[in-house]
Amino acid sequence: MSEFDHDVLGIGNAIVDILSRCDDAFLEAQNLPKGHMQLIDEAEVDRLYSVMGPATEISGGSAANTIAGLASFGAQSAFIGKVSNDQFGRIFSHDIRSIGVTFENEPAANSKPTARCLVLVTPDGERTMNTYLGSSVELGEDELKPDLVQKSRILYLEGYLYDPPEAQRAFHRAAELAKEAGARVALSLSDSFCVERHRGAFLSFIRSQVDVLFANEDEIKSLFQTDSFEEATRMATESCDLAALTLGPAGCVVATPGTRAEVAAEPVERVVDTTGAGDLYAAGFLFGLSRNCDLETCARLGGLAAAEIISHIGARPETSLEKLARARNYIS
Amino acid sequence: MSEFDHDVLGIGNAIVDILSRCDDAFLEAQNLPKGHMQLIDEAEVDRLYSVMGPATEISGGSAANTIAGLASFGAQSAFIGKVSNDQFGRIFSHDIRSIGVTFENEPAANSKPTARCLVLVTPDGERTMNTYLGSSVELGEDELKPDLVQKSRILYLEGYLYDPPEAQRAFHRAAELAKEAGARVALSLSDSFCVERHRGAFLSFIRSQVDVLFANEDEIKSLFQTDSFEEATRMATESCDLAALTLGPAGCVVATPGTRAEVAAEPVERVVDTTGAGDLYAAGFLFGLSRNCDLETCARLGGLAAAEIISHIGARPETSLEKLARARNYIS
Repeated sequence: MSEFDHDVLGIGNAIVDILSRCDDAFLEAQNLPKGHMQLIDEAEVDRLYSVMGPATEISGGSAANTIAGLASFGAQSAFIGKVSNDQFGRIFSHDIRSIGVTFENEPAANSKPTARCLVLVTPDGERTMNTYLGSSVELGEDELKPDLVQKSRILYLEGYLYDPPEAQRAFHRAAELAKEAGARVALSLSDSFCVERHRGAFLSFIRSQVDVLFANEDEIKSLFQTDSFEEATRMATESCDLAALTLGPAGCVVATPGTRAEVAAEPVERVVDTTGAGDLYAAGFLFGLSRNCDLETCARLGGLAAAEIISHIGARPETSLEKLARARNYIS
Repeated sequence: MSEFDHDVLGIGNAIVDILSRCDDAFLEAQNLPKGHMQLIDEAEVDRLYSVMGPATEISGGSAANTIAGLASFGAQSAFIGKVSNDQFGRIFSHDIRSIGVTFENEPAANSKPTARCLVLVTPDGERTMNTYLGSSVELGEDELKPDLVQKSRILYLEGYLYDPPEAQRAFHRAAELAKEAGARVALSLSDSFCVERHRGAFLSFIRSQVDVLFANEDEIKSLFQTDSFEEATRMATESCDLAALTLGPAGCVVATPGTRAEVAAEPVERVVDTTGAGDLYAAGFLFGLSRNCDLETCARLGGLAAAEIISHIGARPETSLEKLARARNYIS
């Protein structure tokens, strides 16, 4: 068993979000699947950018948002992801390092541009994402930093990275290294389209390597090909030790083999932008796990972080999550 | 007299803002003059960026923000400024064009990088700006687009551009062209440090060419070297036809030779970030002028736009100012 000097290490796509407001008619006219993430190529990212409204650039990336949330809770966290030597790469690297996260990957030379995600936010606060993966998709075993993997109490993996085969191999290697060190492996399913693309590979990875699974209702039902959330929950607990399943405004279900708890969502005055809600739920939950909180407290910490993130534009916290959690007596 | 096809043309620095929160102790430790704008070089922008917190990138620039505000009111507006062929140049150009503003300047080749401003926002909502002018400082007569100048009802000039001598010459030429076309010339003093640097040149330009002067209390007192706001107001009306002088939460004074009106500020629930307050006041005021509103209505439109901008991060409107103005019956 290693001595851990980090609470959580996240591996995922290093992305800068380009957020813009639009109406539903724009999504329809552009044929964009509302509420989902779709992968687009460089020509399409340029085309869509040229027709969309004025934007705000903020560092994003699913696991990176989770890690930023963990830093805001006061956890020691680290991130592995691939950026290029361009302006968006500098923005991503600055933002994550400036909050105290260990991020050792140097910008890649001679690679595609840094990934960007055109996030279109409709008046209901829902976000529709269009991701050009750029260099982040080229993450492979070379970028892994085995030392960092083995010194982190929890390894957190982003399902979106299951698209490129190189990154899948890096995932499996990281999970092996974490297991050897006695760390826990957590996975987020990320998106139901992503689950559709890789159902078999996800299932076998979850059954063999994953301790903690994060998913929303659509994703878990898609994974187990059932219309029943109850059945999907039961099947999840047959596949891994712990499943944290989010239900949007209805809160979440935390299930283990033999236990099942429902936790209400944190109330939110006004939903401005749901970008990052799932990522920040995972941040709070993992923070609780790293502090050995009971599972209901983990879920409440997740809900608290999600509530903060959806009350403003962007998927990185604007308020200290540690202070919020103390104010609610979720942590002492 | 030309036929005008634009309501307002703005000329100013084309800048992308890099906004980050910090506390007062950080400003003190970094020796930054709170509430002011200071010019910094490329080495300093890199150094300060490396020590500041996570940021959000949003298009900015004083006159450019004003022009974006005018577009949000539904005015036909145009902008002249210089960007480079880099990521920030693409962001600036996209954002201003995507709101319907005429922006014909192509990215400059072989020039310095696009200008950026590190904006540090303290918990009281005050902003402290650190600007690397990059290529925007190279604006000269070549970038002027005389056609555009002569087809705009109002020419709006940003005082910050008074720093580089080339840009000063471009200003004077633009003002001449506007006058020939029967247009009005408006100027914002921008910053009291800027006024200190160029008092004599500002005064002679105002007396000879400026019809409408925008300034806050510090700036107008600095211009006329007096501690009395009343005296500064009187001196302003001796120098130009119309002075719109802002007093922060105390509203504004609109003065002409022989008249003086005080208009209260628009109430704001919570001041989040004062970046752009003066720029957006000018937007509302100029919109009113372009629609031949009475001066008190112009001032109210200015206050309304300023109130919108200080209630969120960033200096570009997030809500349709036209709709806000209609809801208040300021315009029909």
